[in-house]
Amino acid sequence: MLGLMQDFPLLVHRVLDHAARWHGDTEIVSRAVEGPIHRTNYRELNARSRALADAVQKRLGVKPGTIIATMAWNTWRHMEIWYGVMGVGAIVHTLNPRLFADQLAYIVNHAEDQWIFTDLTFVPLFEKLQDRLPKVRGFVVMTDRAHMPETTLRNPVCYEELIAEGDAGFEWPDFDENTACGMCYTSGTTGNPKGVLYSHRSNVLHGLMCALGDAMAISGRDRIMPVVPMFHANAWSIAFSGPLSGASMVMPGAKLDGASIYEMLNEGKVTITAAVPTVWLMLLHYLEQNPHLKLPHLDRVVIGGSACPEAIMKAFVEHYGSDVIHAWGMTEMSPIGTLGVKSAKAAELPSAEWWKVKLKQGRPPFMVDMKITDDVGKSLPHDGRTFGRLKVKGPSVARSYFKGEGNDAFDAQGWFDTGDVATIDEYGYMQITDRAKDVIKSGGEWISSIELENIAIGCSGVQEAAAIGLPHPKWDERPLLVVVRKPGSNVSREDVLAHLKGRIANWWMPDDVVFVEEIPHTATGKISKLALREQFGDYRFTS
Amino acid sequence: MLGLMQDFPLLVHRVLDHAARWHGDTEIVSRAVEGPIHRTNYRELNARSRALADAVQKRLGVKPGTIIATMAWNTWRHMEIWYGVMGVGAIVHTLNPRLFADQLAYIVNHAEDQWIFTDLTFVPLFEKLQDRLPKVRGFVVMTDRAHMPETTLRNPVCYEELIAEGDAGFEWPDFDENTACGMCYTSGTTGNPKGVLYSHRSNVLHGLMCALGDAMAISGRDRIMPVVPMFHANAWSIAFSGPLSGASMVMPGAKLDGASIYEMLNEGKVTITAAVPTVWLMLLHYLEQNPHLKLPHLDRVVIGGSACPEAIMKAFVEHYGSDVIHAWGMTEMSPIGTLGVKSAKAAELPSAEWWKVKLKQGRPPFMVDMKITDDVGKSLPHDGRTFGRLKVKGPSVARSYFKGEGNDAFDAQGWFDTGDVATIDEYGYMQITDRAKDVIKSGGEWISSIELENIAIGCSGVQEAAAIGLPHPKWDERPLLVVVRKPGSNVSREDVLAHLKGRIANWWMPDDVVFVEEIPHTATGKISKLALREQFGDYRFTS
Repeated sequence: MLGLMQDFPLLVHRVLDHAARWHGDTEIVSRAVEGPIHRTNYRELNARSRALADAVQKRLGVKPGTIIATMAWNTWRHMEIWYGVMGVGAIVHTLNPRLFADQLAYIVNHAEDQWIFTDLTFVPLFEKLQDRLPKVRGFVVMTDRAHMPETTLRNPVCYEELIAEGDAGFEWPDFDENTACGMCYTSGTTGNPKGVLYSHRSNVLHGLMCALGDAMAISGRDRIMPVVPMFHANAWSIAFSGPLSGASMVMPGAKLDGASIYEMLNEGKVTITAAVPTVWLMLLHYLEQNPHLKLPHLDRVVIGGSACPEAIMKAFVEHYGSDVIHAWGMTEMSPIGTLGVKSAKAAELPSAEWWKVKLKQGRPPFMVDMKITDDVGKSLPHDGRTFGRLKVKGPSVARSYFKGEGNDAFDAQGWFDTGDVATIDEYGYMQITDRAKDVIKSGGEWISSIELENIAIGCSGVQEAAAIGLPHPKWDERPLLVVVRKPGSNVSREDVLAHLKGRIANWWMPDDVVFVEEIPHTATGKISKLALREQFGDYRFTS
Repeated sequence: MLGLMQDFPLLVHRVLDHAARWHGDTEIVSRAVEGPIHRTNYRELNARSRALADAVQKRLGVKPGTIIATMAWNTWRHMEIWYGVMGVGAIVHTLNPRLFADQLAYIVNHAEDQWIFTDLTFVPLFEKLQDRLPKVRGFVVMTDRAHMPETTLRNPVCYEELIAEGDAGFEWPDFDENTACGMCYTSGTTGNPKGVLYSHRSNVLHGLMCALGDAMAISGRDRIMPVVPMFHANAWSIAFSGPLSGASMVMPGAKLDGASIYEMLNEGKVTITAAVPTVWLMLLHYLEQNPHLKLPHLDRVVIGGSACPEAIMKAFVEHYGSDVIHAWGMTEMSPIGTLGVKSAKAAELPSAEWWKVKLKQGRPPFMVDMKITDDVGKSLPHDGRTFGRLKVKGPSVARSYFKGEGNDAFDAQGWFDTGDVATIDEYGYMQITDRAKDVIKSGGEWISSIELENIAIGCSGVQEAAAIGLPHPKWDERPLLVVVRKPGSNVSREDVLAHLKGRIANWWMPDDVVFVEEIPHTATGKISKLALREQFGDYRFTS
């Protein structure tokens, strides 16, 4: 028997409608790409998004299912594009300006983007790249007439002129909540980038999830600044979870240096913000140089994207009085997977114990389901020690990549294999211990390459260390530790092994330590285990 | 184009699974109907709910779509029944023990309830009533063998024995999230009670909505006590929004007097609680008599069901340091419609001004859409003065009653007419001013009968006052004020009119004031405007 409740599809433009109707005067403060601070509110943002929705259909020929790309900073205009384009059943494909030209060209062509909305910053990039993007019909430059550059871009459209052509009274259509509305490519370390296609339903549920009291706990009294970019992984949902909570938005635009972020935090009276550790490192460095500066409004800082060093977390908590929420996610998860929010049980821990838990990646909120398994899919215990492949499930988790590529990550029960290896402790807090492809499998047991490296780096004379698993006749794989010496150091194989001894289980001890001049890195600065394994392809353990 | 995100139906048992997996040790403290305080946790509750799900299928023949009734207090067992029965695709129909026998018999027969789960309290009631409930196959008495009474109930089943027969490892089935799972009848003042049929989707979305930072702001550190009964209007979602937030639950059982509620608040270290004003009046009365008692844990109190007197709200805020959230809803809304949570704009108001707003019924959270309209459906302004028919929409709002009765409350665009008349102010806060059928329509303008009454009651010598609209040749309707004098008072028509003058608009002045010995009341103690209009059916205004 079906219930008799209203059919009210979860469409992202309903989020903006809610904010406009019930929090119409609530501010959105942005640093414009043109320079000055710009202020608007939800009522105006809604009107302009509706006008844009009307104009992209009339002038750009956008239809339901059309894919539009943006390469843009976090500003009110980027929000208008999200709501306006998604609101007509079309799809916003966010492009990451940090990608290489080859990857960008691949992604735009693979997605078959029809138009690209670009901030002024990226006009030169597209002027060079456009010949490799033959299917793109034109470019909308996100500025007004006064700032419109001389450009060789084909079919250049001025954003403010486009909006002016639209009807602010445009009525949003209603459609299936499973309709696609957003797209983001993962920049995998191997193979081509793969597209994740978000739906209205997944974005709304993910926005609700992130706003929950047991996640970011966003309220109408919050002023929230996503430093984490809208161009990658949905700005951690904040462009949805902020408006649905009636929170004020503060958008940092193009300037992410310490001084600029500090200015926006105080100018915008920001109560909650979110970014990767690098951003916070820059901010804290700036604050250290200006010790009279405080963060009087800032209540909590969400940190994710990569594991956050303890020093950063402690600086916020102990020096600036802001709480820190460690978070973890993936593009395939919209992106939030876990948040290091204190549970009732964890709240009973003494401070030092809680800090150990707080440094982990956190707990899944409702609507993320999570498990760790061994190689044959058997669930492993939540004891904080056993590590296994991390798998996730939920309404904001992908079930397939765009055009069906790379789908071996999804199993028949719908679990998405994150490619990470993790532990989960008795309090439910997850900690990433390695990438699955980098974990070293010795005699059926797993050794974390990252943990080996982190401990080896503590040996004096060691500048950088990488652990890889190499074939072993008896144990399947055994660890090889590859070390770069600090300039002038003579640290030896025996010194390194002696440092490791007692700090790791005996069977984790590398079978050998080799010294190299340089360890290969990927484009994003991570150790390239792939290249290292190739480099040591002929290496044989002597025992 | 559809998105490529996982199909993860919003099923209520996923809420319990989340709580059991990630907050397994989190406590559920109940006052058992048998007397003692009972403690369990989400892990155990999940196992027992699964065992019950298995047992009701095997022993009671429950199938997807079967309707099961409960007449029970708020305890861990009532939660198990909700999750266990809903989790197999069957429906839990909650019965309100405060209804008259005639209404109960009508409701049980109309719903075609197959089994009734009853607390010990209500066994005598059903022993008398069962002959009028021919379709009910039997009764499950919610206790253990030791407390099982001698009973003439047909097919009596002991709850704990039933659970013991089930498999705690029972696997929940997956099904359409629009499947019905809960049912509650509205006790309308006119006509037969009408059934509202909730779905898994509506309950999960409503639970998410209520947990939001801009609603009840429930987190995993909260300990939440729903005094508001599960037997009416879903305990304001708390049996869902609590577990999905990982909050500890405190269930007050059968004892709702001041001393008992105080004991549970402190025993359970309750941080947030919810009930109707009457409950809080009893608690505050008890606390006044015991001035050494405090409420050290209690952070916020949600009050709804009827308008909360300012004195109650101020006592909590000013004397006990707990915040108060005024809320409003209806059975047809699952039930939450609005909550008096401070918005960014309202936060700028001086305290005295904010109190005026706080006394209103509040703002809708995301997923409740709301408007006020005139009689022809035109939207009216949010100015805090203009009042119109209050209409609502959303995924947790009914679209129809069970068996299609009384559906003239739902319009073609899906708006549900609440039958209330309200204002909405510039901050978005709604205030109920009257029932639509009681509002007095004079020359196309509306006069609030409740506001007239509230002001008239302030006239010395007036004990009770009721305003009704009676036909008028020129103005369509004009107000008649019906007054009961205080014993010994000689207050006159002229005295009453003089008191009203200046306190209301001139055109609101009653055309006449008549004195009666008694004003008729409904079963729930409200003034019966219906009976009054009948009583004065022959009355004619002289001018």
